[in-house]
Amino acid sequence: MYLSSSLLAATTEPVETSLVVASVLLSLVVIYFASKIGGEISNRFGLPPVLGELVGGVVVGISALHLLVFPETGAESSSSLIIRFLQTTTSLTPETADSLFATQSEVITVLAELGVIILLFEIGLESNLKDLMAVGIQAVVVACVGVVVPFAAGTAGLMIFFGIPAVPAIFAGAALTATSIGITSKVLSELGRLNSREGQIILGAAVIDDILGIIVLAVVASLAKEGTVDVSQVIYLIISATAFLLGAIALGNVFNKTFVSVVDVLKTRGELVIPAFIFAFIMAYIADIIHLEAILGAFAAGLVLEETDKRKELQKQILPIADMLVPVFFVTVGAKTDLSVLNPAIPSNREGLAMAIFLITVAIIGKMVTGLTVFGQPGINRMAIGVGMIPRGEVGLVFLGIGSSIDILSKPLEAAIIMMVILTTFLAPPLLRFVFPTPESDIEEKIAAS
Amino acid sequence: MYLSSSLLAATTEPVETSLVVASVLLSLVVIYFASKIGGEISNRFGLPPVLGELVGGVVVGISALHLLVFPETGAESSSSLIIRFLQTTTSLTPETADSLFATQSEVITVLAELGVIILLFEIGLESNLKDLMAVGIQAVVVACVGVVVPFAAGTAGLMIFFGIPAVPAIFAGAALTATSIGITSKVLSELGRLNSREGQIILGAAVIDDILGIIVLAVVASLAKEGTVDVSQVIYLIISATAFLLGAIALGNVFNKTFVSVVDVLKTRGELVIPAFIFAFIMAYIADIIHLEAILGAFAAGLVLEETDKRKELQKQILPIADMLVPVFFVTVGAKTDLSVLNPAIPSNREGLAMAIFLITVAIIGKMVTGLTVFGQPGINRMAIGVGMIPRGEVGLVFLGIGSSIDILSKPLEAAIIMMVILTTFLAPPLLRFVFPTPESDIEEKIAAS
Repeated sequence: MYLSSSLLAATTEPVETSLVVASVLLSLVVIYFASKIGGEISNRFGLPPVLGELVGGVVVGISALHLLVFPETGAESSSSLIIRFLQTTTSLTPETADSLFATQSEVITVLAELGVIILLFEIGLESNLKDLMAVGIQAVVVACVGVVVPFAAGTAGLMIFFGIPAVPAIFAGAALTATSIGITSKVLSELGRLNSREGQIILGAAVIDDILGIIVLAVVASLAKEGTVDVSQVIYLIISATAFLLGAIALGNVFNKTFVSVVDVLKTRGELVIPAFIFAFIMAYIADIIHLEAILGAFAAGLVLEETDKRKELQKQILPIADMLVPVFFVTVGAKTDLSVLNPAIPSNREGLAMAIFLITVAIIGKMVTGLTVFGQPGINRMAIGVGMIPRGEVGLVFLGIGSSIDILSKPLEAAIIMMVILTTFLAPPLLRFVFPTPESDIEEKIAAS
Repeated sequence: MYLSSSLLAATTEPVETSLVVASVLLSLVVIYFASKIGGEISNRFGLPPVLGELVGGVVVGISALHLLVFPETGAESSSSLIIRFLQTTTSLTPETADSLFATQSEVITVLAELGVIILLFEIGLESNLKDLMAVGIQAVVVACVGVVVPFAAGTAGLMIFFGIPAVPAIFAGAALTATSIGITSKVLSELGRLNSREGQIILGAAVIDDILGIIVLAVVASLAKEGTVDVSQVIYLIISATAFLLGAIALGNVFNKTFVSVVDVLKTRGELVIPAFIFAFIMAYIADIIHLEAILGAFAAGLVLEETDKRKELQKQILPIADMLVPVFFVTVGAKTDLSVLNPAIPSNREGLAMAIFLITVAIIGKMVTGLTVFGQPGINRMAIGVGMIPRGEVGLVFLGIGSSIDILSKPLEAAIIMMVILTTFLAPPLLRFVFPTPESDIEEKIAAS
C-alpha cells in the first residue's frame, strides 16, 4: 500500500484522488489508442504520422465519439463518455461528476502542454544554432512577409468584398498571421527534413512569426477593447522578446559548459535528464511569464544544450519521454476541434462559407508567397518553405477566443475563422509530405533512426 | 504560436491555462532541485538516494520552506511560496490564487500518482514472475505474520497499557499493518537487491500485505462507521483481489505473445512504449476501480511484459520516463509530511509521545519477526527481510484520514500514528542499507548499471 490520499482527502476535497487517477488513466489509454492507430494508418499511406494523431483526436473528441471532451469547447460532464463510463464502473455520483470532469480536463490539458514543451525541447536539441543563424536573415524575411501579406490581404478583402467593419476585419486578418510551430516542426522531424536548409528556414521563421503574432495580438486586442493601441505594452513585448532571444543565445555560450560539469558530478539516476528538465522548465517558465510562450523557452533550452557534448545521450533519453507526452498534445488538439462548423444545416456556417473560402485562400497563398522571398539560397525548395508555413493550428482560435469574449465577431465570421484553422492544420502535413518527395525506404529509415 | 487555450478559455474558466502551466513548471523545478540535491547528498553518505528525495521533499514542503504545499495538509494558497511568487511575477490576482493553487495541487498529485504507477511498472519489469512464485509461500507467511502481529500487539497494547477504547485501538492497530511498496521497492532497486531472494520475498510480501491491508481497512472502516462488519464488501474485495492476481498471471502466458506481435507490426515512433503504457494503464485502471490500488495493476503489467523478449528494450526506454516522474512522487510524499507533530510545544504531541514510542516499537518489532518465519531458505538474510517490511509510508495516514473523518481518534493518538509513519518511512532506507552490506564500489556499479 502507498500514498492513497483519496481517503485522507475525502474530508477536504470534493473528488477522491483515486477517481481522478482513474479518469486520467482512461483518458491516456484513449489518447494512446487514437494516436497509435491514427499514426500507423497515416504512415501506411505515406503521410506524416502526426496527421493521423490529429485525425485520431478528432475521432475520439467532441466531433465524433465524445470519449475525450473538454469544458472549454462547451462540453458538459454528462457528454463525456469517459465520465459516464466511470459512473457505471465506480461509485462516482452525478454531483461529483462535474468536478471530476473539470479536474480531469485540467490535468490532460497540462499534460498536453508539457507534451508540446517537450516536443519543442526535442526539436531544439535536434536543431543547430549556427545553422539557424546562417539562414537567420531569410527566416526573418519569410516570417515578416508571412505575417504582413495574409494580414493585409485578409483585412482588406473582408472589408472590400464582404463589407465587414474595420475592427472585426483586422481581428480576422490577425488570425491569419502566425504559423503553428508544433505541427510544422513535428512534420519536418517525421520527414527527416528538420535539418535541411528549408527546414531550418521554416523553423526559424515560425519562431519569429510566433513572436510577431503575439505582438499583433496585443495590438489588435487593445485596439478592439479600448479603441486605441496600448503602445507601452507593445514596446514591452518587443523588448522582452528581443532580450529573451538574445539572452538565450548569449547564455548558450556560457551555460553549456556549466551544464556539462554539473552533470558530470552527479552520480544518481536521472543525472542527465533532471538537470536538463530543470533548465528547460525554467526557460519555459520565463518565456511564459513575459507573455511569450512556454514552448519558445523550451526550444531555446534545447538549442543551448544542443551545443554540449551531452547532446546525443540527452536526445536518446528524451525520445521515450516525448513518445509518452507529445501524442497527448496532438490528440488533444484534434479532440478539441469541433467539426460541427462544417455542418451546412447551421445557417451561420452557410453564410460563413464564402468568407471561409476567401480566408483559406489568403491563408495558403499568403504563406506560399513567402517561399519566393528567399534569396541567396540557390536550389532551395521554395514551395516547401511556403507550405511549411501554412498550418495555423490553434493560433486562429486564440484570436477567435478573444474576439468572442469582447463580442465583436459575427457568427458567420467566427465559423469562417474556425474552418480556416481546421483546413490549414489538417492540409499542411500531407502537403508537406508531397513537396518533400523522399523515396519510401528512406523515410522509414529516417523515422526508425529518429 | 500554438494551442494557447489560455485566452480562448478566459471566458469559461477561472484560471488561465498559461498560469496553470507556469505554476506546474515552477513546482517541477522545485521538485527536481529537491530530489537531485537530496538524492546526491544521501548517496555521498552511502545511503539510498530515495531517502534524500524524501528529506528534500520535507525541506521544500509544509514543514520548512513552504515552496510545495497542498490543500489537503491544511495549507492555503497564501502560504504557498510558489503561488506568492507567481503573484509577483504575473498578473495573478488574489481572487484567482485559490483556484490556481487547487488546480496546481491536483496536477502535481496526479503526476506523483503517475510517477509511482510507472515506478511499480518498472519494478515489475525488473522482477521475474517465476522467481516470485518460487518464494511465494514464504512471501505469504511473511505478509500474514507482518499483518497479524503488529495489528494484534498494537490493538491489545493500546487497550491494556493506555486504556484506549476498542474501536480506536483497532483503528490504530490496523494503521500498523501494511508496508509501503513504493519506498521499499525503490530502496531495494537502488541497492541492487531487488532480484535477490530477500528482495523477492519482501516484494511479494509487500504486494500481499497491501491487499490484506485493503481488506483490513474495509473491515475496520465499516466497523467504526456502522458498528458492524460489511461482510459482503469484504468477500467482494477478497474475490476481486484473488481474481485480479490469478487473472494477471494467467494473462501473462497468453498476452505476452500478442504484445510482441503487435509491437512488431508498428512502424511509427513510440511503437514499444505506447502499447506498453496502454496495457499498464488499463491494468492500473482495473486495479483502481475494483478497490485495489492502481500501482498493483501497473506492477502486474510489468511482470507480464517481463516475460517477453522486448523486456530489455522496454526497460531502457522506461528508465528516463521513470527518472522524470518518480521523483515527483517521493518529493511530494516528503512535502506532505508535517513535522509539526514532533513539536513538543503542542500538548497533544507530548501526550501522544508515550503512545508513539509504543506504536513505533510494535511497528518495527512486528515486522522484524517476519524474517524469523521464513523457512526452507538456508542462508537467507532474515534481518533484511524484516527491515524491508518496516516502512509504512502513507498507509497509516489513510487509516488516520478515515479515523479523523468519522472522529473516533483522540488528538494524542492521531499524533502518535503520524510519528510512527514518519519514523518507519525515514528509518527504513538507512536501515536497509545497513542490513544489506555491499562494498561501496559494487553499489555504485549497480546503480550505474540499473
